[in-house]
Amino acid sequence: MHELHLNIINQASMSTIEKDTLFIIKIGGNIIDDEAKLSLFLNKFAEIKGKKILVHGGGKLATKLAVQLGVEQQMVDGRRITDAETLKIVTMVYAGYINKNIVAKLQSFNCNAIGLSGADGNTISAHKRPVKNGIDYGFVGDVDSVKTRLLENLLSQNLTIVLAPITQDLNGQLLNTNADTIAQETAKAMSLIYNVQLIYSFEKSGVLLDATDDKSVISSINPEIYQDLKHKQVIFAGMIPKLDNAFAALQAGVYKVIIGKAEELDLLISGKSGTSIVHD
Amino acid sequence: MHELHLNIINQASMSTIEKDTLFIIKIGGNIIDDEAKLSLFLNKFAEIKGKKILVHGGGKLATKLAVQLGVEQQMVDGRRITDAETLKIVTMVYAGYINKNIVAKLQSFNCNAIGLSGADGNTISAHKRPVKNGIDYGFVGDVDSVKTRLLENLLSQNLTIVLAPITQDLNGQLLNTNADTIAQETAKAMSLIYNVQLIYSFEKSGVLLDATDDKSVISSINPEIYQDLKHKQVIFAGMIPKLDNAFAALQAGVYKVIIGKAEELDLLISGKSGTSIVHD
Repeated sequence: MHELHLNIINQASMSTIEKDTLFIIKIGGNIIDDEAKLSLFLNKFAEIKGKKILVHGGGKLATKLAVQLGVEQQMVDGRRITDAETLKIVTMVYAGYINKNIVAKLQSFNCNAIGLSGADGNTISAHKRPVKNGIDYGFVGDVDSVKTRLLENLLSQNLTIVLAPITQDLNGQLLNTNADTIAQETAKAMSLIYNVQLIYSFEKSGVLLDATDDKSVISSINPEIYQDLKHKQVIFAGMIPKLDNAFAALQAGVYKVIIGKAEELDLLISGKSGTSIVHD
Repeated sequence: MHELHLNIINQASMSTIEKDTLFIIKIGGNIIDDEAKLSLFLNKFAEIKGKKILVHGGGKLATKLAVQLGVEQQMVDGRRITDAETLKIVTMVYAGYINKNIVAKLQSFNCNAIGLSGADGNTISAHKRPVKNGIDYGFVGDVDSVKTRLLENLLSQNLTIVLAPITQDLNGQLLNTNADTIAQETAKAMSLIYNVQLIYSFEKSGVLLDATDDKSVISSINPEIYQDLKHKQVIFAGMIPKLDNAFAALQAGVYKVIIGKAEELDLLISGKSGTSIVHD
């Protein structure tokens, strides 16, 4: 029994050692809207050694375009109701404008990037979210599966992948999918092959004790601390889905989850900034 | 001498036999604007056995969006002057909306497609067209090189590539590039590896003797016939750049060029429809 136990530990540590590290970095909307911050972030991102995937959201560009085109936007719980016209807009903005501009910018930083949506190579398939409690989210996709083979193949060619949060249902229907979820599901799937470090980078310095004080970063959160913070209602509502996702990702095999400021990406990776989400 | 001659013939035919066939198919704008025709075309495209690349233009969607957004469009010799706002629009429409919708539709036809712009994997690099005769085309890119390695690798994974006519200059600048040129340059570069059949498919049945009579298709054109037709001014102006491109492609090693109706794609490939452009 003792021997068996040791054997299992050895196998586990061996497989951890043998796996390559893969950084999956989600970049938040407010950074995308700020050209100078985005450029600084992409420069630091390009400098990360090794394999990496960037997942981006859409920022305010899609909303702005919708206003210009007179397409009314409805939001429920911070999620966009995606009617046919809105789907057209987010497909244009996310998979077109933002994705290709990020790719071109990375190329200029000598980082050979390839931009994909979930539809490309059928990398991320999804189904239209069912109507629930009377809310029809429209063309919003909930992820069914992330196929790792193409992603792994591209990474092995030293390509950096830039993922836009558009998926498809295999019946020809594109779907709008939350970028945090794309990052999480991709991280979970890729954990079979890599030691995945999942980084949610945005405009704040990490998980804050005081939402108005950027210096009140909690450097490390385990499940126990999380329950306590939630109970005391210290964590502001917008952070809760991110943290729930982070713990779910750890449970599914992701090596490490870090939340912090996009412009400090290098410090997030070296552990000198941000909040680490850990098992215990 | 006789032996040497035979030897050269044998080598040439051997290399022709050993190379895989690659279909590079350009689809014209009017088909993209017509959902039913596009679907029929994509269904036939999906059924082509073997390796294939689809190059698409933008149809009238970009022009329509520009009008909706109040961005004035200037055309010179059938080419759009691409100012910064227009570049944003074509990037959204070509690399986003059209590219991803084609990919999703192909997935629904069991054709595993991956959509790329020239920026992705630095596949097609270009430079901003210099100002000439006082005309500044704006952010229009003239192709410098097509890198075959990633394309070859994706094709070898049984992926079908869908190319949007957006390129980049390696300094982070996206550029709007003519889709016919993208098809031609890709065909030329890929001819080193494959027997490339380059097909320009659009709304007409081929090169017509009488532009108003869809039955006046010239089934085969060689350089001599072409000069004669041009001299007699039988060929309408819009077709001349396509034919010039076709002959240039043949000269650069492309195996075959075919021009014809998109909905008859299967007949174009089997040689029962369209115009073949041949050496002699």
